[in-house]
Parts: sequence; C-alpha cells; structure tokens
Amino acid sequence: MSTSSQSYPMSGGDDQHSYIHNSSYQKAVIDGVEEKARQYILEKIDLLYLMKPDHSTFTIADYGCSIGPNTFHAVQSIIDTVKLKHMKESQEISLVPLKFQVCFNDQANNDFNTLFRTLPPSFDQEYFSVGVPGSFYGRVLPRNSIHIGHTSYTTHWLSKVPEHVCDKKSLAWNKTFIHCNNLIEEVTQAYKVQFTKDMSVFLKARAEELVPGGLMIALGECFPDDVAMYETWSGIVVDTIGDCLLDMATSGVTTLEKIELFSMPVYFPQYSELKRAIEQNGSFTIEMMETTRHPLEAMQLTNDFITSMFRAFLSTMIEKHFGDAVVDELFDQLAKKLLKHPIDFEKCKKKMVYYIILKRK
Amino acid sequence: MSTSSQSYPMSGGDDQHSYIHNSSYQKAVIDGVEEKARQYILEKIDLLYLMKPDHSTFTIADYGCSIGPNTFHAVQSIIDTVKLKHMKESQEISLVPLKFQVCFNDQANNDFNTLFRTLPPSFDQEYFSVGVPGSFYGRVLPRNSIHIGHTSYTTHWLSKVPEHVCDKKSLAWNKTFIHCNNLIEEVTQAYKVQFTKDMSVFLKARAEELVPGGLMIALGECFPDDVAMYETWSGIVVDTIGDCLLDMATSGVTTLEKIELFSMPVYFPQYSELKRAIEQNGSFTIEMMETTRHPLEAMQLTNDFITSMFRAFLSTMIEKHFGDAVVDELFDQLAKKLLKHPIDFEKCKKKMVYYIILKRK
Repeated sequence: MSTSSQSYPMSGGDDQHSYIHNSSYQKAVIDGVEEKARQYILEKIDLLYLMKPDHSTFTIADYGCSIGPNTFHAVQSIIDTVKLKHMKESQEISLVPLKFQVCFNDQANNDFNTLFRTLPPSFDQEYFSVGVPGSFYGRVLPRNSIHIGHTSYTTHWLSKVPEHVCDKKSLAWNKTFIHCNNLIEEVTQAYKVQFTKDMSVFLKARAEELVPGGLMIALGECFPDDVAMYETWSGIVVDTIGDCLLDMATSGVTTLEKIELFSMPVYFPQYSELKRAIEQNGSFTIEMMETTRHPLEAMQLTNDFITSMFRAFLSTMIEKHFGDAVVDELFDQLAKKLLKHPIDFEKCKKKMVYYIILKRK
Repeated sequence: MSTSSQSYPMSGGDDQHSYIHNSSYQKAVIDGVEEKARQYILEKIDLLYLMKPDHSTFTIADYGCSIGPNTFHAVQSIIDTVKLKHMKESQEISLVPLKFQVCFNDQANNDFNTLFRTLPPSFDQEYFSVGVPGSFYGRVLPRNSIHIGHTSYTTHWLSKVPEHVCDKKSLAWNKTFIHCNNLIEEVTQAYKVQFTKDMSVFLKARAEELVPGGLMIALGECFPDDVAMYETWSGIVVDTIGDCLLDMATSGVTTLEKIELFSMPVYFPQYSELKRAIEQNGSFTIEMMETTRHPLEAMQLTNDFITSMFRAFLSTMIEKHFGDAVVDELFDQLAKKLLKHPIDFEKCKKKMVYYIILKRK
C-alpha cells in the first residue's frame, strides 16, 4: 500500500562506502537530543491509557530507518525509557509485563538484508523485529498499531523531484544546479510546495497508524528563517558536487544535458515553514519543538569525512541518473576541489537541528 | 528473540538458479490443496469471535516464506477467502471493514530484499507487508497477534543437525551419507528425536502467537509409515548427490573428511510420527489432517528439472560446508549421473503430501 515515489536508499552493505560506516554525523545529533525524549516519556506518557487492557506488546516504529546502527540505538533508547516508566508505574498499579515490537520501515529497495543481519544478537535483543517495506509518504502499517513512532533525518527526502524543476521550458527550471540552493526563487517555491504536500501526507499517515495518546518523535535539520541553503556548509558541498559534474561534462564523462535534467528530491525547510506544516495537520498536539545546533557544525570537519558522508548519502541517486561509471570519479574530484578550496566552517551560516515530540490526539 | 539455529536460505535473487525460478514443484501442491482450506475457512471460522471489536486488521503470517512467488500466492488465497467470508457475514451482522497485514517470516539471512522488491505492485496490493526475520523455532511475533498462520514445505528443515550424526566416535554417526536415508537405525533415531523436539518448539511458539480461535495451516511432505527415505525418488537424488561428492573427494575437489562431517538438517517424518508430534502439543485441535499424493510424483520428472530444483534447495548449504568452488561441479556431476542412471519413478515408493489445519483452543 505504499505510495509510488522515487527512492534512493542509503548505500547498503558494510563496506567503506556504506551508510553503516558513514552515519556518525547523524548519530551525533541523536545522542544529543535523546535525553529530552527520555525525560518527556518518563514524565508524560500514560501507559495505562496507551495500552489496551488485553495488550502487552508495546510497538515502536522507526520510519525511514535505513540500516544500522543509528536505528538500533534510537529504538533501544526508547525501549529502555518505556521500561523504566513501566517499572515505576507498576509500583503503584499492577500492569501486565511489557513486550516490545519494533517496526523498521524504509523503502522496499532499502538494504533490509543487511539491517536484519546486523540486528543486535538474539540474547541481547529485547524486542520482536519486523521490517516494513514501503514509502512513509503513505500508509505502511495498520491503523492504531503504533505506540511510539520515530523518524530521524528522513523528511528532507521528498517523495519526488518537484514538478518543473527539471523542465527546461519552465520558470522553475533549476538550470545546472543539482539541488534547492535557494538561488532561484521559482525553484525554491516548487520545492516548498512539494515539501508541504509531503509533510501533510506523512503526518496524515502517521496519525492513522498511531494509537490515541501515542507519540511521534521527529528529528532532522532545518534553516533559521533568514538562512539560505547556499550559505551553509552542506549547501556549499552540494554546489561543489554540481561544479564537479560540470567539469566532468566538459571532459566528456557525462553531459550537460544530463545535469540540466537532474535535481535532487531533497529539501530542508525553514523553521517557521516546518512548524506551519505540522500545525496544519490537526491530529497532533506539539508537545515539544526545540532546536539546537548540530554538535559537529562548530567543528572544522575533515575533507575525508565530508566526502565519505556525501558519498554514502548521494551515490545511489547519482548512479541512477548518471550511471555507475561516474560515482568514483565524482567523489575523487570532490575530494580534490575541497583540498584546493577548503570550506571555512566559521564563515558558513548554520542550519538548526530540530527535535519534535507530537502527541496523537 | 529468534532461537539460534543453522540456517540455509533458498537461493536468493532471481537468476536461473534462484528459488524464485525453481519452486514450481512446491507450487503444484499449493494449488492442489488450497481449495480445501478455502472451504474450511468459509464454513468454519468465526470472524466475530476472531476479531476483537476494536480491531479491523486481520493478520496473516507465513512462517518460512522464503522468497516469492509461492508465498504471495498462498497469502492472497487466504485473503480472498477471508474477504469472501467477511462479505457473507456482513450481510447478517454489521462488521467493520477488514484490512489485512501479512507477516512474511523467515531466517534473518533469507533474501528479504528480493522478497520486498517482488511484492505485488502497490495498486494491486490489498495488504500491509512486514518482513519478520528469525527462526520459527522460537517466538518471532507478539502474543495473540496472528489470525491465520501458514507454513508450507518448511518444518522438514530442522533447527540443527541432530547431535552425534557428524561425530565419528558415535553409533549415530552418518558415515559418508549426507542425509537421513533411513539406512542406519541410530542415525534415524537421532533425526527423529530432533524432529519431535523442533515440532514441539514450533507449535508452542505458534500457540502463543495465534489468537484464540486462530488457524494454523501447514503443508509439507511425510512418508507412509512403511516407506523409508532411500526408497523414494528424492531420497535417491540426495544419495546420488552424496555419491557425486565421494567422486569429487577421489578426484581431490573436496575431501572424504569433509563429507564425513556433513549431514543435512532435513528430516521428513512418517505420518504417524507427525500426527503424534502435533497431538503432543495441547494448544490446538486438529481440524483437518489429510494426505494426498504429490501431483508431480506420478510423472517422470526431467533430469534438468530435478537438478535445478535440488540446486535451489541445497546450494547454500553445500557452499557453506564445502566452499563455493564445489557447487557448479557437483550439480554438473549430478546431471551426468542422472543421465547415466535415470531414476525410474514408477519403481520408487511414494511420499505423501500432508495438509493440516489446526485451530488454537
């Protein structure tokens, strides 16, 4: 029942280019904010209300889980907290012992084989695992079946490239840019429309899947309202990747035509835009909406780290559009360009990490 | 929470040697018996009792699903029948509309990626799919969560090679035989003990996962009580594979030592033995236990068909023990031996296909 959508999974397997070995940037955020979720869960959730009397299984879904280890870490943290809360509540009223089930959701072309083969060993594992294939821009799980939903660094992936940004006859054509860098107003507008639509579909589906009183925890990145993508370090990296592609078109490895027809289905919203998109869905109350700086954004990241991270993030998409012969050279060229023109992290404007807890009415 | 066990998935992917393209033998049985399950479901299940008032999701699990297309076919048939039953009952009493969820279970090293990528297209798909990694010789799903469980051609795979059959000092040592062909009494006994133990664990776990009134449908093969494995055509094929390995040890491709330490964790029970194992578990009533002849067993199967089928079935296991260099040559040799000494299907004793419907008390 998943909606059809473009789908570019993180690099699978566990070799040097895999997401498994290149997801520490995301991990740094998770570590930073999970303490807040723990406190919220401990103080606010009502297990007696949340769990029907005949149910002893607490079900958690990680939407857009990719492959480990971040997803395992995130769900374990939620489980540990719910167990602590359950233990405390059980001292006052008699509660049935809790079992846990975790639904690992991602696109059907995610590397579920690797996900399953790297699950924590069974003797440590306190939960039943299921893999849920399908785009989260649509229903993937039964109604009223999830107690806590979680999603981390996912909804900047749009369900598709916005209309017209790859149409050379349109005002919203993105020319030779390969993402929404906020330099062409009509392009930005097309991305905004797509993002708002996608968030609406995402939240509507989650509202159906969550039980009343259930929580949806979301984290990711957004911009302060006065910052544009091209002013941030990651915006600069993607623009540099675009420059590398143009160089490769000149040398004949790819073509200008291909670049003109390529734009990434990725969009980071502004803070107020994100908030508005959430408020428009009436099924949730916003229990917490905080922003913080990414702990690594204050540091001068090494070129190796940047190249590896963007390769894990983008190679599937690049390969699909430009062919697999392009990937190695593209990231070699990126490494060279970054060496020649290092990014000055101090001068870059900063994105924000957002951390949201929604409660199903 | 899966139990640890040896695990040899069917050949993944979709190339010429894959299970996807070599599962028609199993399919022929499913076609033959599903009509009986349809009738049983239509006449006997009580949807009102089965479904709690607040539940609109009917959940089906296929235990040991491997990859398609047989699993998709089996669950679709169950869904179609339950829908028909639901439609009929809704004419008398008002029932909430049904949604379906299908839990595809197999070992964590099953090729779930291929399973998910070959799911029926979303517009045809009437159910939410989840993949459930873990050995069915243990719990893999929450308590009281499944309405109909299904398993087809699976429980002849034991959780492990029985104790002592690969121990050269034991009376139960299987010498250079590679499976339980019933030629050594102590070996047969060791396999029987393991089978009974595994069936007990399988049924105990399913009893916990099924809702009261839920059905467990099982099909597979067994022997009439007076037939031994070595007298059947598939027994002869596996013994011939063993002979090929011995030839390959002589020519130095593998070693006698390796063959002496290899025995397949596969056992087909006798009919009365199977029945006893089911009756020993007190949580189910046997609603139907029928046997039939496999529709293809009356035919002279071609050598190509036999070789391809056993390759899809055994290559993962052979590769793991003997190394991947052995697989191609082994099945080439098998083809040659079968050409030289064709199996006379008329003279072979016949196995039986069993078809069981159990109801959770």
